[in-house]
Amino acid sequence: MTKETAQAVLPGAPHRLEALLNARSVAVVGASGDPAKISGRPIAYMLERGYQGAIYPVNPARQEVQGLRCYPSIAAIGQAVDLAIVGTAAAHVESAIREGIAAGVRAFVVFSSGFAELDEAGRAQQQRLTRLAQAHGVAIVGPNCLGIANSRSGLLATFTTALESHAMQQGGFSFVSQSGALGAYWMDIVLRSGIGFSQWITTGNECDVDAAEAIDFLVGDPDTRVIGLYIEDVRRTDAFRAALERAARAGKPVIAIKAGSSSAGAAAAASHTGALAGNDALYDACLLQCGALRVPSLTAMMDAARLLLLEAVPLGNQLAVMTVSGGAGVLIADACEPAGLQLPDLKPEVAEALIPVLPSFVHPSNPLDITGNVLQDTPMIARTMQALSTDKDIHGIVLFIGMMHSIAGAFVQALSEARRQVHCPIVVIWVGAMDGSIRALEAAGIPVFLDIPQATQAIARCLQMQRTRAQIVRRAEVPATASAPDGGQALPTLSEWDGKQLLTSQDDVRLPKGWLLEAGDAPPPGLPYPVVAKLQSAQLLHKSDSGGVALGIRDDQSLRAAVARLRELGTELDIPVQGVLVEQMLPFDHELLLGLRRDPRFGPVLTLARGGVEAELDPDVANLLLPATADDIEKMLGRLRCFKLLQGFRGKPGADVPALAHRIGGLCEWFMQQPLRELEINPLAIRGDQAWALDALIAPLAAT
Amino acid sequence: MTKETAQAVLPGAPHRLEALLNARSVAVVGASGDPAKISGRPIAYMLERGYQGAIYPVNPARQEVQGLRCYPSIAAIGQAVDLAIVGTAAAHVESAIREGIAAGVRAFVVFSSGFAELDEAGRAQQQRLTRLAQAHGVAIVGPNCLGIANSRSGLLATFTTALESHAMQQGGFSFVSQSGALGAYWMDIVLRSGIGFSQWITTGNECDVDAAEAIDFLVGDPDTRVIGLYIEDVRRTDAFRAALERAARAGKPVIAIKAGSSSAGAAAAASHTGALAGNDALYDACLLQCGALRVPSLTAMMDAARLLLLEAVPLGNQLAVMTVSGGAGVLIADACEPAGLQLPDLKPEVAEALIPVLPSFVHPSNPLDITGNVLQDTPMIARTMQALSTDKDIHGIVLFIGMMHSIAGAFVQALSEARRQVHCPIVVIWVGAMDGSIRALEAAGIPVFLDIPQATQAIARCLQMQRTRAQIVRRAEVPATASAPDGGQALPTLSEWDGKQLLTSQDDVRLPKGWLLEAGDAPPPGLPYPVVAKLQSAQLLHKSDSGGVALGIRDDQSLRAAVARLRELGTELDIPVQGVLVEQMLPFDHELLLGLRRDPRFGPVLTLARGGVEAELDPDVANLLLPATADDIEKMLGRLRCFKLLQGFRGKPGADVPALAHRIGGLCEWFMQQPLRELEINPLAIRGDQAWALDALIAPLAAT
Repeated sequence: MTKETAQAVLPGAPHRLEALLNARSVAVVGASGDPAKISGRPIAYMLERGYQGAIYPVNPARQEVQGLRCYPSIAAIGQAVDLAIVGTAAAHVESAIREGIAAGVRAFVVFSSGFAELDEAGRAQQQRLTRLAQAHGVAIVGPNCLGIANSRSGLLATFTTALESHAMQQGGFSFVSQSGALGAYWMDIVLRSGIGFSQWITTGNECDVDAAEAIDFLVGDPDTRVIGLYIEDVRRTDAFRAALERAARAGKPVIAIKAGSSSAGAAAAASHTGALAGNDALYDACLLQCGALRVPSLTAMMDAARLLLLEAVPLGNQLAVMTVSGGAGVLIADACEPAGLQLPDLKPEVAEALIPVLPSFVHPSNPLDITGNVLQDTPMIARTMQALSTDKDIHGIVLFIGMMHSIAGAFVQALSEARRQVHCPIVVIWVGAMDGSIRALEAAGIPVFLDIPQATQAIARCLQMQRTRAQIVRRAEVPATASAPDGGQALPTLSEWDGKQLLTSQDDVRLPKGWLLEAGDAPPPGLPYPVVAKLQSAQLLHKSDSGGVALGIRDDQSLRAAVARLRELGTELDIPVQGVLVEQMLPFDHELLLGLRRDPRFGPVLTLARGGVEAELDPDVANLLLPATADDIEKMLGRLRCFKLLQGFRGKPGADVPALAHRIGGLCEWFMQQPLRELEINPLAIRGDQAWALDALIAPLAAT
Repeated sequence: MTKETAQAVLPGAPHRLEALLNARSVAVVGASGDPAKISGRPIAYMLERGYQGAIYPVNPARQEVQGLRCYPSIAAIGQAVDLAIVGTAAAHVESAIREGIAAGVRAFVVFSSGFAELDEAGRAQQQRLTRLAQAHGVAIVGPNCLGIANSRSGLLATFTTALESHAMQQGGFSFVSQSGALGAYWMDIVLRSGIGFSQWITTGNECDVDAAEAIDFLVGDPDTRVIGLYIEDVRRTDAFRAALERAARAGKPVIAIKAGSSSAGAAAAASHTGALAGNDALYDACLLQCGALRVPSLTAMMDAARLLLLEAVPLGNQLAVMTVSGGAGVLIADACEPAGLQLPDLKPEVAEALIPVLPSFVHPSNPLDITGNVLQDTPMIARTMQALSTDKDIHGIVLFIGMMHSIAGAFVQALSEARRQVHCPIVVIWVGAMDGSIRALEAAGIPVFLDIPQATQAIARCLQMQRTRAQIVRRAEVPATASAPDGGQALPTLSEWDGKQLLTSQDDVRLPKGWLLEAGDAPPPGLPYPVVAKLQSAQLLHKSDSGGVALGIRDDQSLRAAVARLRELGTELDIPVQGVLVEQMLPFDHELLLGLRRDPRFGPVLTLARGGVEAELDPDVANLLLPATADDIEKMLGRLRCFKLLQGFRGKPGADVPALAHRIGGLCEWFMQQPLRELEINPLAIRGDQAWALDALIAPLAAT
């Protein structure tokens, strides 16, 4: 099976990574008796944590390793081996894998470094591993990785020190990491905090198994409920997108850290993985439209994961807030507003139901200050929550408390009881909470945050992701539109006139009526004044900046003068002049920049942005990977800050947004079928349900 | 001494709050033998933590309280008493204070609630306490507060449970809180994390001692190095600003949480403190221009405080980053860019100096991946930092590590050594750090953060604050400009014409040439066409929206028609028409909205904003409390996003920003001396060093 078809397995057939992540037997090549050595650690870890499968140390120099019988070679084991761990020097990795393949091993984890991350020779060695995997249908993880771990079976094919300090704990969180170190930190946090995990995969240099395939496997892993991801660069973007979309449809959230958003970061990422750094904005678009949640840090990942794993994401953005301090209620309201979370007024019947529950001096409101009285009357918490819970428009209850160490036990009990009685999730913000209380509440399905912004940000992020995912699940799978081949050589950009001739073969975006006046041509009779005149040359791409555009021409005489001036400009600039394009000036209400291009990593991409000086002052841009539906494009328009203008703002006319999205969608489909590298329409003029390309730059691809 | 002159003490005279916060003897009125009761806790806390002064329980019903002799009345003590703690029912507070005053007590802490926060009767009772304080020159904290604490003397005039769980620890951090609960959480965090504190003051209802005075005291407290602040509403804004500026000049950072940034939050704050909620944007301006750092949460406060207390704020925004993982280096670069922190390329001589220090396969760069090799060679850390430290343009070194629990001791030692050798602060980001390692590093002057964004945000915030403070220290104290009285009744807004007549008495902002055409007036001869015609009525404040403006009039005939139409409009709208204002149309490059008004809380305030649709789409506003210098106004202009336009953008002409700031400053001074409630110039048209009021709305104040 080749890499490209890895996901195209028959229904019911085991996933290619079964032999890897659910291996029932492991050989450790070059096994060390020292449990602190790289090739000794996996054995020590698996022995200590009770790996359920067979462990076969392989080392011709030893009879016994860490109390286990040691074999001189993989072939000598004489039993089926699912997985072999290889941590030898880079020069010996290929032969070890060949030996394993010959002995029937189906998957390999290669710790060794010194491959593509080091130099050209390493790159060539790594390519040989890739070819071995493809030729023999085996799965190879790494090289230059920290390995894999499966908490259920105790398969610990890793040398990460993160396993040294903590007990193993099973859980619903799994992690795929292109960085071993980030993988280790994740493991450390997840074990220390008691969240636990299911599968853990560090993919290293990705000679064969990559992040996309690992995610795809986790979608089918019954123990995985939430997938964490650390990526720097993804090569098989189609498979990556497909895996993310499968996860969305399967209801398994993906929380991703993508490194390299900054210019410096992108440079560092390139030197780190030896991979060409992708364009961060496109990764952002990719994660967003595939329903993954992008977070900036491991801390933010854990905060979101805690809500998701405990199924404690509020059902919507309307929260009831209870506090033991008025000040904290204000601070929560402050944190909610910019995060898009609302604290609706209490309905009269709810306020009334609260009166007998609350101390007499407390006025029912949202946020609700239940006051320090709760110290004397913890059951009040459950009663208050029940009263709030009668309003089904409340999507979640946030309780803020502080310290209360002396009555933590009663608190935990009251909250656990309340959780069983209310219709919506409960989220606790507990300043100064002790670990034991946090664990106990989490066992009852109540996540605990130590301060306000962490909680509100995590809630807002999860809600945003769930909205996107709901759209993905609702819509049909986007049909894979046939796309013109990508590999063609880029040809020079066409003149506006030539580009617009190409655009006449589609009819979603209209063109203003235009006439090309070649040398000596008189203005044609009956021109629809006012018109604009634009110098045409394939070598003049930024006409306005060079004075190559004359606007607002009102009669033949002015037009003649303008044409003469533009031709003079052509002579001054010493460029080949194709002619002067005379176009009808159209009234319009809105303008956008529309870009379509084929990205080397992500294929066809649509870019929409606000044009003009405003846009340059403070860019307002959205990207969308294609193919996409008109609905996707409408949502994309909604992400632009200038969307308010398109909706009609301050009495100015809006645009017919669904019609506009439909037209742009049509243009995208047309673009995908054309042998074009890039198309930029700037401005795209909009009025009502119509859109015109007032200017267009097109760069074709040579036929391949 | 009255409240208003509290700060006007003679040099060398003790601060009014000395008797409060450095009290040498404390009476506890209504002292309880139960150490869990509100009036038993302060005694129990002080006994346990060894208060250095005398404790006098006062309770006619007891001979002895918690092992101390108990007195029937304050007068019966027969010794000087600095401070009395009053926690009785609200009805008995006033008599207790009167008794104390008679016995020579100089300061009171009133825990009791049931005052202004409850009802009108409580408000009246509280006002009597205020009058007592003013009449007798005693300091009263509260009512409805958690009290005060001084870690050095062990004075614990508080019943906060935050003291139950932790040992007392002295430190350089002090806190002033308008919320008892937030004060308690602060105390809990500060004691638990080992940061320690000097003074702690919860001001409650502020019948007398308020946050401003408490800050003022802390500026002179030798043990206080950083001041934390939680406020909801400040009544004496002048004193507050003076105290903040004193803190800035004394080099004592103030880190503030201001509740009520959201609309819901503002409402909740009003109901919480019983005080009229101020305008959050003005608080924001106030904190910014007085050099305080506003943070959104206690966590963010602690993060910034850690840097400041350890004197570990980088010397500037150029950081060298060392990591044990390439991925982390990328993530740090990602977090630095939006925070305004830079990772400069290493200078060639620094890179060269690093080569012998680093493992052979490591390429010197920034961020610098020192790799896991550091596990085997911790002294490499100090050597690497020394090599980086040869570049004095590096303002701070950020080291990222993860876990490393097994060699934590060696790490701490290597870092502590490095700290003594390098010229700039070291900040450690240690994912999974253990408490012991954190404490040890902090003892060596190295702050530890558990994840990346927390560290970069804290660094960026502290640098921003220090820049503002440097400006405050550099500039002379802004002279207190005489300001027209504030209390006048507001009069109706003037027509544009009448308002502009007032503006002719200043000459910083120019007015276009204008003529008021009253009923029947013909256009005056020689009008400088093109002109604009505007209907004038004190009842038509938004002329454009109602069609009351005719632009681009080019001759007498068009003007006559426009005037007739505008007069018709006046008839249609049924408003009294003063006439039609005809003004010269001026060419200009930029436009701003300029607002000047007298805020009931903060006095005269300047608002500058971008005008037009753009501004409404995505507001771009800055506020400045007056008086202010031209330099302040120039910096304020720099905070507008559209400042780039004023500087000249994409070939368009810029404005003469210093001249513009100077003109606006002149207008501000003029405004402060006029009996005006509000002046809005929109647009303020700008070209070069000139500014014109194209429209103006003025609301005068009645003479008082």
